[in-house]
Amino acid sequence: MKRFVLKGTIIYCKSKEELAAVDGGYAVCEDGICRGVFETLPERYQSFTLKDYGSCLIIPGMTDLHVHAPQYTVCGYAMDLELMDWLNAYIFPEEAKYHDLSYAKTSYQVFVQDLVHSPTTRLCAFGTLHTEGTLELMRQLEEAGFTGYVGKVSMDRNSPNTLRETDGAEALKGWLSQCNFKHIRPILTPRFIPACSDRLMAEIGELQAQTHLPLQSHLSENPIEIAFVKELCPDADFYGDAYDRFGTFGTNGSTIMAHCVYSDEAEIARMKENNVYVAHCAESNFNLSSGIAPVRRFLDAGLHMGLGTDIGAGTSVSMFRSVKEAIIASKMYWRLIDSRQKPLQFSEAFYLATRGGGSFFGKAGSFEDGFDFDAVVIDDRKIRTPLPKDPVNRLERVIYADDCRTVIDKYIQGRQVICG
Amino acid sequence: MKRFVLKGTIIYCKSKEELAAVDGGYAVCEDGICRGVFETLPERYQSFTLKDYGSCLIIPGMTDLHVHAPQYTVCGYAMDLELMDWLNAYIFPEEAKYHDLSYAKTSYQVFVQDLVHSPTTRLCAFGTLHTEGTLELMRQLEEAGFTGYVGKVSMDRNSPNTLRETDGAEALKGWLSQCNFKHIRPILTPRFIPACSDRLMAEIGELQAQTHLPLQSHLSENPIEIAFVKELCPDADFYGDAYDRFGTFGTNGSTIMAHCVYSDEAEIARMKENNVYVAHCAESNFNLSSGIAPVRRFLDAGLHMGLGTDIGAGTSVSMFRSVKEAIIASKMYWRLIDSRQKPLQFSEAFYLATRGGGSFFGKAGSFEDGFDFDAVVIDDRKIRTPLPKDPVNRLERVIYADDCRTVIDKYIQGRQVICG
Repeated sequence: MKRFVLKGTIIYCKSKEELAAVDGGYAVCEDGICRGVFETLPERYQSFTLKDYGSCLIIPGMTDLHVHAPQYTVCGYAMDLELMDWLNAYIFPEEAKYHDLSYAKTSYQVFVQDLVHSPTTRLCAFGTLHTEGTLELMRQLEEAGFTGYVGKVSMDRNSPNTLRETDGAEALKGWLSQCNFKHIRPILTPRFIPACSDRLMAEIGELQAQTHLPLQSHLSENPIEIAFVKELCPDADFYGDAYDRFGTFGTNGSTIMAHCVYSDEAEIARMKENNVYVAHCAESNFNLSSGIAPVRRFLDAGLHMGLGTDIGAGTSVSMFRSVKEAIIASKMYWRLIDSRQKPLQFSEAFYLATRGGGSFFGKAGSFEDGFDFDAVVIDDRKIRTPLPKDPVNRLERVIYADDCRTVIDKYIQGRQVICG
Repeated sequence: MKRFVLKGTIIYCKSKEELAAVDGGYAVCEDGICRGVFETLPERYQSFTLKDYGSCLIIPGMTDLHVHAPQYTVCGYAMDLELMDWLNAYIFPEEAKYHDLSYAKTSYQVFVQDLVHSPTTRLCAFGTLHTEGTLELMRQLEEAGFTGYVGKVSMDRNSPNTLRETDGAEALKGWLSQCNFKHIRPILTPRFIPACSDRLMAEIGELQAQTHLPLQSHLSENPIEIAFVKELCPDADFYGDAYDRFGTFGTNGSTIMAHCVYSDEAEIARMKENNVYVAHCAESNFNLSSGIAPVRRFLDAGLHMGLGTDIGAGTSVSMFRSVKEAIIASKMYWRLIDSRQKPLQFSEAFYLATRGGGSFFGKAGSFEDGFDFDAVVIDDRKIRTPLPKDPVNRLERVIYADDCRTVIDKYIQGRQVICG
């Protein structure tokens, strides 16, 4: 099915402020590319296969811009520590288990199966240090129909011996040579400054300069972490500058930095200059007591931004939850930190989850002509109300209910994934 | 089935700090009363009917200490306003519809059916101003097997004409005379100071002094509301004092005050003195941008406290969500407001949802000998993980997943309610 039309109640973002909603609309897919949404199906598309979803909602696919697939095994456990202690007590010991390929296989199966039933169509995921395990994750995601980036994690200090490489650059090259997937592509993934020696970070910077591969890492998440980075890199002007000195802060290729809870004006300015993406992970920042990221300031500064579940500090693969928590976090930022920073409107948070994160892939996250055809079909009849059914209110309700059971079908670059 | 034993992995609070967990334990019910939890079933209970739930979790029932049943129709909609504007724009017009008994019937059916599939066994609910509609809610909750209090809302000012009574005391007495239910009992429910004239509040105070009925209302939720109360009651020392002057702040009977986000030392001291219960509604306080209640200070002051979903400013009947959001809120309070106020531990939040709120009913919310037998049976096999299954970690995971599908059976004072 390469040319088809979906019929339903279609909602998508035209801009951060503008949601388009078409009851009984037609979304046209031609060879994986969206040809737009129409109230009446144009003559030229009437020969396409029509899939009528009745009164279901059809929204663009959501991009999870920051997710640690191997941590899905521990998510929802032991949320009593802050970042650095939590990594040492729970996360590093868990990730070390992924040297065992059969453990990786079983664990990633659960993650990928649950992801299928979520509104996520694209993702930027961390694997672990292990080449074989990470390739296994990529294979499973590819087979399930997803599009995305997956990174073998690079780390060589301040972690247990079981999670420390002696030649991280060599390991990276070995992994890259085996990344032969169509829709799941590799992304450079230095864990974060505390876990990467200067040598390793410099090698990754060089590799990115040669290959122009994208890169993902963490930035300014927690005060203790930030103090540690200052200690490790006393010459850096700020956390982001510690990356930038190695060329791993957007100058050599597209780059995502997760969290940015404590990014100040200088860091924000550098991110803008270097086109760095923010992956805003509100639930994770709540659960690890990190704080709240200044998303309104990021928007005002014109930064690229999307949302991440940040499994396993986030506790669900559901991007519905990420949208809800992003709104809540922005309200608390306004109330408790800075009343000049207006909370996110629903349309803005929905934008971040679809078009905001999707733009990391080029044209993704909307139904405008020329965008990749990523769609999520939602049957919200289980969420009952006697109220009149305004499309946007229906969508808002699904998202606040955080109910992935409503997701019945997905399309990723036109490839159908059955969820219901 | 009046004498029975449930077998499973049993978890309950002995105190705020101490969770008891018994794998393959037996919880004994005799005529609606719990006779304790045992690792080996004592001889004297071996004639009781045994219901073996295998590896399922069995926890005490949860009490929703603050919920507006009629607002379930709008929950998850239009979360862009603060309290007073939100009431006027969305809530009052919606509640006005409940003068139509058939609308009330249909709407309450959805609420009660969803509540059946939740971990809630007891509740303190607001109806609307309308006698017939509120009686309908009580009837439906009674028939579904719940135990709880329901209040016909009293209000006579600062609301639309359609939601304003001329003789609130008379209306209250008329309603009370028709409250002939066994497990669902009436509770006095002045909406809040802004919506109740001095005369009405004084009449309710007198009625409570005569009848010793319990009472529920709202307190110190939002800065604009608090300023309005100051304007309406210039002589009151603080918001709670405005109630206390009418005897509606715990002196004449058990009293629940929802929110208490901005309660200061004087208000906390008065609540302690008057035995007032706090219904902490973290998600609602997030959604309406109200702020975060100082729950650690409430605990340190020895206040009675439970959790509320506060439908419709809260967006789910799931008390799992209320537990999760209470923990998150306390972390943000610690991080953003006062680092001396330690976040809630998981056991503390679980305590608040079970034993904390349950104590409003006497002995409820635990499995110790002499407590009412309220139990929730959770089949968490859908939440898959390769990790070893520690009982408390399993429970934590269910709660963070906020997955009511795991609730398969409930018992309320020994009455079985099928959920699965």
